[in-house]
Parts: sequence; structure tokens; C-alpha cells
Amino acid sequence: MTVTAPKGFRAAGVPAGLKAVAGALDVALVINDGPDTTAAAVFTGNRIKAAPVLWSQQVLKGGIVRAVILNSGGANACTGPAGFQDTHATAERTAAVLSGRASRFPVGAGDVAVCSTGLIGERLPMPKLLAGVDAAARALSRDGGAAAAQAIMTTDTVAKTAVHGGQGFTVGGMAKGAGMLAPGLATMLVVLTTDAVADATTLDTALRLATAVTFDRIDSDGCMSTNDTVLLMASGASGIEPTPYELAEAVTAVCADLARQLIADAEGATKEIAIEVTGADTAADAVEVGRSIARNNLVKTAFFGNDPNWGRILAAIGTTSAQFEPDQVDVAINGVWICKGGAAGEDRSKVDLSGRAVTVTVELHAGIEAATIWTNDLSMGYVHENSAYSS
Amino acid sequence: MTVTAPKGFRAAGVPAGLKAVAGALDVALVINDGPDTTAAAVFTGNRIKAAPVLWSQQVLKGGIVRAVILNSGGANACTGPAGFQDTHATAERTAAVLSGRASRFPVGAGDVAVCSTGLIGERLPMPKLLAGVDAAARALSRDGGAAAAQAIMTTDTVAKTAVHGGQGFTVGGMAKGAGMLAPGLATMLVVLTTDAVADATTLDTALRLATAVTFDRIDSDGCMSTNDTVLLMASGASGIEPTPYELAEAVTAVCADLARQLIADAEGATKEIAIEVTGADTAADAVEVGRSIARNNLVKTAFFGNDPNWGRILAAIGTTSAQFEPDQVDVAINGVWICKGGAAGEDRSKVDLSGRAVTVTVELHAGIEAATIWTNDLSMGYVHENSAYSS
Repeated sequence: MTVTAPKGFRAAGVPAGLKAVAGALDVALVINDGPDTTAAAVFTGNRIKAAPVLWSQQVLKGGIVRAVILNSGGANACTGPAGFQDTHATAERTAAVLSGRASRFPVGAGDVAVCSTGLIGERLPMPKLLAGVDAAARALSRDGGAAAAQAIMTTDTVAKTAVHGGQGFTVGGMAKGAGMLAPGLATMLVVLTTDAVADATTLDTALRLATAVTFDRIDSDGCMSTNDTVLLMASGASGIEPTPYELAEAVTAVCADLARQLIADAEGATKEIAIEVTGADTAADAVEVGRSIARNNLVKTAFFGNDPNWGRILAAIGTTSAQFEPDQVDVAINGVWICKGGAAGEDRSKVDLSGRAVTVTVELHAGIEAATIWTNDLSMGYVHENSAYSS
Repeated sequence: MTVTAPKGFRAAGVPAGLKAVAGALDVALVINDGPDTTAAAVFTGNRIKAAPVLWSQQVLKGGIVRAVILNSGGANACTGPAGFQDTHATAERTAAVLSGRASRFPVGAGDVAVCSTGLIGERLPMPKLLAGVDAAARALSRDGGAAAAQAIMTTDTVAKTAVHGGQGFTVGGMAKGAGMLAPGLATMLVVLTTDAVADATTLDTALRLATAVTFDRIDSDGCMSTNDTVLLMASGASGIEPTPYELAEAVTAVCADLARQLIADAEGATKEIAIEVTGADTAADAVEVGRSIARNNLVKTAFFGNDPNWGRILAAIGTTSAQFEPDQVDVAINGVWICKGGAAGEDRSKVDLSGRAVTVTVELHAGIEAATIWTNDLSMGYVHENSAYSS
């Protein structure tokens, strides 16, 4: 179900020949049949933004999105003015074909968001893509969400979808992302839908609250992409207007679910690592400490080797500006406090790292704030996947 | 030769049983026979500092260092008050044995710098280490520099030494460091000696100028260590007092030589990558851009795979706060301008990445400042070395 779980949405995923594998789904379309068409989005913090990000940022200024067209097989990033024209043409074609037949309302290109993912620096094969837009419009259906989620996959090994039911309304979502997973949005495309009634401002608030504690706190490889987009569209078809808090809660639940799926499917990863930082002076301190550990290649390779190397964790913490005293930091790995007061604690041989799930707990003894960052190990598989193939 | 190339220094490297390999040299001693004993040092920026760093910082406050005792086989980091006592005892023993026989002057523990490198979080085997101090003092000689350079190696595959001759004076040096190579000092121990006449302030200025453009600009794996120390000692034995500029130039030459040797021997590396950033608004911008590329795992794995992936380089640049316009950035790899104006330029198949040396040139078109950062690729070997062994 995914993005088509909430009432008022149709979706499709079709093969357009953009991916090397024949017949692979690579163009997705999600349309909001209303009655409302409010929307909000957050985009990559990278200053090198792909053409579809630049386009969609303009679209979202109006707070209205009628449809989003997505493609894998090419990021359309670093493609110059010609690449932007390609995005524009894609939105125009989507608007035209929806207005012509598939939509209950006329659709303008300015109401169509565009997302692309794949190799940076190459132009998209536009004839194929535009034919894909036509095919996707023909294939739109109330249960097209699963195909859409498949069509946005790149190095993902599984499609990622989530649904959360609120009081009388539903939030659904799909996500892609397996490499370039990092800060201020892991590299990814996410489309969220809801049949709740909510204006664009309420949606924006809910989405920012949700992403700040979910996608912004996963950091698989420290690399921020040029194409990250998280789009939330509301149809109002349930007729229910939740409180802003209820809405934010439901959107956060879906984002958290999708974020965990991204970490679980990260390129080459053999571990899913939750870094819980407690006793921080501020939440920002907790996030900074968690992220410094998540990005430390020596920590990450140690986990790949099942080595509970708390010394490398301390060395990572020491690079931050967070409030703490070096001789008061405690560190546990999977519940064993192997570092107490900045020095050796319990016997490291007690730590069981045989499983895929790892929890690192860092107690700073500097306050009462906390945050959890999710990351992966740095494996042979990661190096292989990112050295053997362009992306 | 190395640290014993300048007049007024003796050194030794002896086996003390700290390393797992029987007979491996692991304790080094360098003594300044004067007539001067001025010194300066820079230390790790990591807030988690090893006991020998905390000790040596105190020693250097006086601007006098008579001797430095170094050990591999254990970092004595995150070892609490007991670890600090171990460092203190090491300095005391060194002072005592030198005063007793090997030195021409009485030596106080407060004039002995201490450096340690190896696994974090474990206590040093003090009986072995103290016996090693005695043995090193007995072995001191005018040509002990080579053995000292060997004794500080950890995962280094070759000893690193350098000598530079000034006008009537000489600067010599030795270095160790192969992993945890990063910012604000790559992880390493470096001892520099000179027979120039210079007061502690002049030495400090020369050393900071030199490290800022050498060790501070190598960034192999983004991981900053707890033990980094660069120590410069002057004997004045040449009788020559160079200008501050001449001295800084000679010290910089030795540091640059050693820095390149560190990058050449980085763990698992198959490429030595110079990232030249030109056309920057400020030197700080150039360094920030260079470092963002040097630390990007997707860029680093691409180079391991001989893939001239300029898109990943642009994505890395986009994460910085440097002054630039996305549509004006040019990127060359080994002289081929594969990215012009933020989009595809020359054919990427023209780039030859078969060799070990790689030069990335980034022209920001935002000013006239420039900087070069040196780094390595991220290889299977790096992951293997850092996952299979603790450090």
C-alpha cells in the first residue's frame, strides 16, 4: 500500500529503460486526487543541488502539489541549464498527460514536483523518460504504491514503505536510499501522503519536526547527496483535521519506520548501530557526539571486525565541542560498560557483537539531554560497492 | 642520521618487549646535549588527551626539553590517573638514568618529554618499559637516529626520517603514523631536532608555521588521535642563529618531507591524492573544500576503484560553507578538466588513474587563495587492517 494507503492518492511504477536492467521499474508517479492538494517538503542541505531539487523548491513555495514524478537511473545533478530544462520538460509532460486524461482537475507544471536519483553529472535520456511519464499516467491506480516504491530504488535491495494510522486519518510513505546516507537528510527520496486535512503550514511544521528526529539522525556514511527530497502531500480525503501534534506524531512514526529501513539496507553494511548519547548538556551536544562517532571510520571498521574498541569511540568524542569532562565519560556497547570515567571498565570480552544490531551508549555526565543517531559499520562490502560501480 | 643529523643530539632505539613481535624495537630516546636545550611542541587537538600528552604539555611550558622518551606498543590513553602516574614514572626514570651516567648535565623529570603510541585504553607494562628506558640510555649514540625512528613505528611499514640543511645549521626529524591520520595534526609522533641557536619563542613560531601547512593539511582518514605530538628541540651546537624566516623554512621543509612519507605509507592505501584548491576567496575556504573532499568516503572509494567520479567531488564541495557558485566550479583529475562550470567537461575516459599518484584540482573562481590537502583512497586494505586488529 504505502503512499496509496491514505485515501485520495493514486500511484504507479513503470519501466522506461532508464536503468541498465531491462524491464526494471524506474519511473514513479504519485497523484493527489484531493479534495485538498496541500504539501510541504524538505530538501538536501547540499549547496550543489540537482535540477529537480531546484525545480521542486519553486513548486513548494506555493504550498500546493498535485503530483510528483520520480525517476531512478539518473540524478540529473550537475547538468547545468540543460538539465534544468529537462526537469521542466518532465513536469510539463506530467501536467499535460494528467490534465488530458488521468486527473479529475487540470494540472499545471507548477504543481508537479520532480525527483531524480542515480548517477551525478549525466543528462537523462529524455525521450525514454517522457514516454515513461505517459506510461506511468496510464498505469495510475489506487494500489500502485508498491510499484512506485520499487521504481525509485537504486542500490536498494528492498523497497521501503510504511503506513501509520492516526485517529481517523492515515499517513503512508515510500523511501529509497542506500548510499550517500548522511546529515541534514540522508541521501534519499521520500514521498509521504496523508488523507488528513491540513494546511501547508501545518504540514511543514509536522514534516520538519519529524525529519529532525528521524532522517536527520541517520548517518550511514557521512556523505550528503545533491538530490535529497522528502515530500509530504495531503488530500484531506478523510475529512479529519488532526491537531498539529497528532499529525506530527503520525508523520514522525512513518519517517522513523522508513529511516530504520534505510539504515537496515545501507550499502554493504553488516551492522545497524544505534548510538545513544545521554547526560548531555544540550540536545545539540548529544547529536554532535553521536554524529562524531557515526562518522569515524576507525570506529566503523572496528564494528565490522566485531571489535568493541571503546578507545576509538573516546577519540571520536574528543573531537567535538560538546560539554563533557574526559575523565567522566562512560561508554557501553550492547549493555556492557567497558569504559567508566574515561578509562577501562568492564571486561571487553563480555561484549557480544555477533548480531547485526549494536547499541552504543555514551553517558556524558554533563546534563539531562539525549539523542540517538543511527549508523552502519564500514565494511569490505561498502568499499566494494562504491569502488566497483559509479553512482 | 635523522634526529641525530644535527650536532648536539644522541639517540637510541631498543627492544623492550612492548610489541608482540619478539626483538622489535619499541623504546626510543633522544637527548639534547646542548649547549642549548630550548624546545617547542604542538599537540593533538583532541580533547581526550593521552597521559603523555598531558605530561609533555606541562614540560613544554618552560620551553626547555633535555630529552624525549618514546614508546610504541601502547598509547597510554584513557588510562586515568594511574596512566598519568606511569608517564610520570617514565620521565623520572629517564631523568635519573641520564643524570647518573649518560648526560653531561643533571636532568630533571620536568625536562623530559614523553610520547606513547599504540592501543588506547590499556595500561603500559611498566617493568618492561622502565627496563627499556635503562637500555635506551645505555645505547645512546650519535648515530642512533635510525634505530629511534624504527622504535616508534606501529602499523608503519617503513621508518620515516628527513634532514634539511640550512645556512650553517641542520634540521632533522623522524615520524610515525599510518592510521588515525587527520586534522589538526595527523595521528603521529614527530621529533624534530636542530643545531641552530633559537629561543623557545622562535622555535614555537617556526614549528606552528610549519605544521599549519604540512601535518595539518594531511588527512588520510579523518580520525584525530589522542596522542599526536610534534616536538622540536634545539641544541645550538652549530653556533649559528638563523633568522626566524630561515628557521621556519628549514623546519617546514623537514615537516613537508615527513608529511608526504606519512601519506605514502597510510594504512591500506593504494593512492596518494593531492587535492589542490585554487581560486578560493580565503585560504580557510580552500582548506575547508580540500578537507571535505579528502574526508568523503564515496570520493575515496571511487579513487580506490580508479573511477574519476567528479560528481561525488562536487557533492562533497557542496557541503562546505566556502564562497563559490555551483555553476562556476571546475574540477580536473590528473590534469583532465572533467567538470567545467559545475557540469560535465572533458571526457572522463581521458583520465588515467592507473598510477599511485593522483592530483585533484578544484578551481572555485571565487578569489585568489589556494591550499593543498593530501589524502588517500579508502581501500579494502584499510578496512581489513582496521577491522582485523585493535589499535
